[in-house]
Amino acid sequence: MAQIRHALTTTRDDDFAAWYQDVIASADMAEESGVRGCMVIKPWGYGIWERMQRLLDDRIKATGHDNAYFPLFIPLSNFEREAAHVEGFAKEMAVVTHHRLIADGKGGLIPDPEAKLEEPLVVRPTSETIIGDAMARWVQSWRDLPLKLNQWANVVRWEMRTRMFLRTSEFLWQEGHTAHADEAEAKEHTLRMLEVYRAFAEEDLGLPVVAGEKPENERFPGAVETWSIEAMMQDGKALQAGTSHYLGENFARASGIQYQDKEGTQTYCHTTSWGVSTRMVGGVIMTHGDDDGLRVPPKIAPWQVVILPMLRDNDSDAPLIEYCEQLRATLAGQMTLGEPIRVLLDTRPGKAAQKRWDWVRKGAPVIVEVGGRDMDNGVVSLLRRDALWDASSGKPAFETPTREAAGETIPATLANIQAALYTEALERRESNITRGVTDFAEVEAFFADSNRYPGWVEVQWSKPTGDALDKVVERLKALKLTIRNVPMGGDPADGACIFTGEPAVERILLAKAY
Amino acid sequence: MAQIRHALTTTRDDDFAAWYQDVIASADMAEESGVRGCMVIKPWGYGIWERMQRLLDDRIKATGHDNAYFPLFIPLSNFEREAAHVEGFAKEMAVVTHHRLIADGKGGLIPDPEAKLEEPLVVRPTSETIIGDAMARWVQSWRDLPLKLNQWANVVRWEMRTRMFLRTSEFLWQEGHTAHADEAEAKEHTLRMLEVYRAFAEEDLGLPVVAGEKPENERFPGAVETWSIEAMMQDGKALQAGTSHYLGENFARASGIQYQDKEGTQTYCHTTSWGVSTRMVGGVIMTHGDDDGLRVPPKIAPWQVVILPMLRDNDSDAPLIEYCEQLRATLAGQMTLGEPIRVLLDTRPGKAAQKRWDWVRKGAPVIVEVGGRDMDNGVVSLLRRDALWDASSGKPAFETPTREAAGETIPATLANIQAALYTEALERRESNITRGVTDFAEVEAFFADSNRYPGWVEVQWSKPTGDALDKVVERLKALKLTIRNVPMGGDPADGACIFTGEPAVERILLAKAY
Repeated sequence: MAQIRHALTTTRDDDFAAWYQDVIASADMAEESGVRGCMVIKPWGYGIWERMQRLLDDRIKATGHDNAYFPLFIPLSNFEREAAHVEGFAKEMAVVTHHRLIADGKGGLIPDPEAKLEEPLVVRPTSETIIGDAMARWVQSWRDLPLKLNQWANVVRWEMRTRMFLRTSEFLWQEGHTAHADEAEAKEHTLRMLEVYRAFAEEDLGLPVVAGEKPENERFPGAVETWSIEAMMQDGKALQAGTSHYLGENFARASGIQYQDKEGTQTYCHTTSWGVSTRMVGGVIMTHGDDDGLRVPPKIAPWQVVILPMLRDNDSDAPLIEYCEQLRATLAGQMTLGEPIRVLLDTRPGKAAQKRWDWVRKGAPVIVEVGGRDMDNGVVSLLRRDALWDASSGKPAFETPTREAAGETIPATLANIQAALYTEALERRESNITRGVTDFAEVEAFFADSNRYPGWVEVQWSKPTGDALDKVVERLKALKLTIRNVPMGGDPADGACIFTGEPAVERILLAKAY
Repeated sequence: MAQIRHALTTTRDDDFAAWYQDVIASADMAEESGVRGCMVIKPWGYGIWERMQRLLDDRIKATGHDNAYFPLFIPLSNFEREAAHVEGFAKEMAVVTHHRLIADGKGGLIPDPEAKLEEPLVVRPTSETIIGDAMARWVQSWRDLPLKLNQWANVVRWEMRTRMFLRTSEFLWQEGHTAHADEAEAKEHTLRMLEVYRAFAEEDLGLPVVAGEKPENERFPGAVETWSIEAMMQDGKALQAGTSHYLGENFARASGIQYQDKEGTQTYCHTTSWGVSTRMVGGVIMTHGDDDGLRVPPKIAPWQVVILPMLRDNDSDAPLIEYCEQLRATLAGQMTLGEPIRVLLDTRPGKAAQKRWDWVRKGAPVIVEVGGRDMDNGVVSLLRRDALWDASSGKPAFETPTREAAGETIPATLANIQAALYTEALERRESNITRGVTDFAEVEAFFADSNRYPGWVEVQWSKPTGDALDKVVERLKALKLTIRNVPMGGDPADGACIFTGEPAVERILLAKAY
C-alpha cells in the first residue's frame, strides 16, 4: 500500500475540530465576517444550502403547507405572553432600541437619544409569538383548520460561543407553524413533519438519523413535546439536525388562537412548530467530509459534474473545449436523481492540477479531467470523489472511459454516489452505537477519555421527571453527556433503569453532542 | 350595455389608494402585522414573490452571478467609512444596542444594562459596506475579477410613512454586488443588470418600463451613477421598480477593495450594486389590478389555472371530482411559457360562487368551473381573468369548450394572457406620456389638479448641477413632481431647457411618483 498525500493539512484523526474548520476554508464554503458571531456564507456553501432549501421546500409544500413571511422584529410585550418561552430565549436576544443615528460630535455616530423606541423590539429568535398573532386573526371557524404555514427566514440568538454553521448568532432556517382543531391531529402532524425531516436527511443529504422524542429537560421553551432527528458525526458526537414540537394549547392561549367548532363552541387550537437550519450544512460536512475535504451528496451538489479541460490558455485550446462541451451538453440533457444533471465546464484560467484539487476539496461528486491525449484517444479521465484514491499506487483513481461511455454512465454513477455516501454513514453509525449497557459505571468508563468520542450508548431508564430528572441530567453533565432522544420504533424496555434501578420504561440514547 | 357588478367595493376611479388596499385585502396578499411599519406577507402574496424570485434568480445566475449570504448586522464603524452613504441612511436605521433582556421587577422585561453592546449594530438597510469588507478579502489579483455576487435578504429602513409592499420598514429584496477591474467594465455591467431588470419587468411581470439614468439629486447615497427602470401605475404615477448603481471607486476605497493588475500595480476596483424588492409586487397590483381585484400575469401566478368543481360536499361528488382531475392531470403534464403548468383542483369546502369570486379577486389567470351539467355535456365553464365580463349581458364571460378542447387550448390561452396584460399596460402608458412640452407653465397646468394624475411629461433640459439643480428640484417639488430618469435610446435634445432657457442637452421624464 502506497502512502496517500491527502489534500487537507489537518486530518480528522489529528484534530477533528481543526479539520472541520479546514474543510470549510478549503472548500470555500464560509468564513468569519468580522461581525460578532455572524458568518459569511460563500457561494459554494450557499449553493449547497440553496439545494437543501429547494428539496426541503418541495417536501414541505407536498405536505400541504404554504410559505408566508412575518416580521423580523417582535415587540417585547408580544414575547412576554408565554412565560416558559421568554424565559428560554431572554438571555440571548438582540434588542433594537433606536431608529436613528446622529453625529456624536467627534466624527462618529451614536444612536439618537431622541429616536428611542417606546417599546424595544426583539430580533426574532423564532417566530411562534408573531405567527401566533396572525393565526389568531386568521382562524375563526373549524373550516379554517388546519392552518399550515412555513417561513424561510433569518433568526438571531446571541450565542456566546459560536462555530460556523453549527452555532452562529444569525442563522438561516425554515420554521413551520401549524394550528389544528385538537390534540390528536396536532400530535399526528408533529410526527408527520418529523418524518419529512427524516426522509429529507436520509434521502437527500445522505445523513442517517435517529428520530425520537426529547426528554422533558431538552424541550423547546413552551413546548409540550419536542421530537428530534439526531445524526452521528464522524467523531461520534451527536448533532440535533431538526426538531418538531407539539405546543399543546400553550401558544394558542398566549396569542388567542381560537375557533368556533361545528357545535358553535369557541375552542383553543393545538399548534405545532418545527425547524431545520443552516446547522444541517455542518452536519453534512462532519458526516461526509474526509481528509481531502468535503464530499457533497449529488442531490445537494451545486455542480454534480465538473469538466476540467487541461487548457494552455491560448488559441490551440478551442478543439479541447469543443470536445468537452459535447460531453457537457450530453450530460446536461439527462436526468439523475429526479432532476436534470448540473454540470459545469470549468474553463477559468488557472493550472489544471490546482483546479482539480480545488474541486476535490469542494467535494464535486464527479470530476472529469480532459487533456489533449485524452481527446486524441476519444476518452476522458474520470474521478469519483467518493473513491478518490487507488490504495495500491497512492494516486488518484482515474478511470478512462470513452467520452461516449462517460456520457452514458455518469447519471448512474451520481445515483451510486448518493447511495454510497448514505450507506457508509449508516454503517459507521451502527458500528458506533453500543447497546445493552446496564451499569452506569460502564457508561462512565465508555466516555472517560475526553479526547475520544466512542459514539453513542443506548441505555434503559424509568423516565424520571422533575427533581429526579435534574439529578440524572447532573450526573450526565459531569461526563459531558446529554440524552439525545428516545428512539422511535426501537425495542421496548425490558430491564432496570440505569440511573435508579427501578423498572425501565423506555430506551434512550446518551452522547456527547454539538 | 348592461351594468356590471364588480367584485370590489372600491373602484380605481373612486379612490385609487383605497382601491389598492382593497385589492391587497381581497386577494389575501398581505396585512399589517401590528409591528410598526412591518407587514405580514400572506401565502398568495408570498407565492407571487416566490415566483418573481425564481425567475429573476435564473436571470441573475445566467449572467454569471453566485448567490451568497452576508450578516444582517453591520457594525457602526463599518458604516461610517463612506460619508455620503451613511449620511443617506443614518436617519432611518434600526439600531441594536443590547443582547439580553432581564426582568424589570414589574412583571415585564427590559434590555439588560449589563448586556449593552460596546459598539451598536445597525440592521442592514443595504449591504455595500459589509459586502465591501468581504470583497476586500476575496479580491487579490486581476484573476479574481470580475467578482459577481448576489444576495436574497431582508433589509430594514425605518420609514415614517409606510404602505404595504411599496414602502415598509422591513422589506425583502435581492441586492447584487460586483467588483471590476476598471470603470468601463463596471459601467457596462451596471447597464447589463439594468437590462436584466427591464427584461424581467416586461417579459415576466408584464410591466412596461422606461430604463434611464437618474439625475444627480436622485442618486443612491455613495453612487457615481444611478440608473432605474420606471413603471407607470394606473393612476399615472411613476413607480421606481429597480435600480442599478455604478459606484466608481467610492466603496472600493472605503473598504479597501484592491487588486494587483497584470503589471503588478495595486489598483482599486470599480464596483456596482443593484436591487429589486417586494415593492415590485405593489407595481404588479397597480398595473394589472382592476375593479374585480388582482390580475396576476401567468408567469408569476402561483396557480395559473384553478379548477372549481361545484361540489355538494357529499358522496355524490366523486364522479365530478374525477372528471375535473382528468383535466388537471392533462394540464399539469403540459408546458406553457417555458414551465410546467401550475394547476390547482380546488376541492375545499365552501360555496362554489364564493370560491369563484375569491379566485377572481386573487387574479388566477384562468378559472375553470365545472358543474354536474357541464360533466353530463362533456364540457367545462371557463373564465379568462383578463376578459372577465360580457359587456352586453353584464355577466361573467364564460366559455364552454369541451373538456378535451380546454386541455388543448389552455396552454396557449395562458401565453395570450401574459402578452395581453403587457400590451394593455404598454398602450395605457404610451397614451399617458405627453411629449413636446416646452413651457414650464404648461407643466404646471398639466399637474395642477392634485386629485388627478394625468401621467408623465417629457421635457428637455440643460442638465444643471449643484445649486442650479437644487432650484429645479424645488420648483418641481412645489408641484409634487420629481425627475424620474433620462430615458435611454430616446430622441436627442433639440430645443431649449424648460427650466433655464439654455440649450437643452437631454430629455427627462417628470412625474408624480410612489
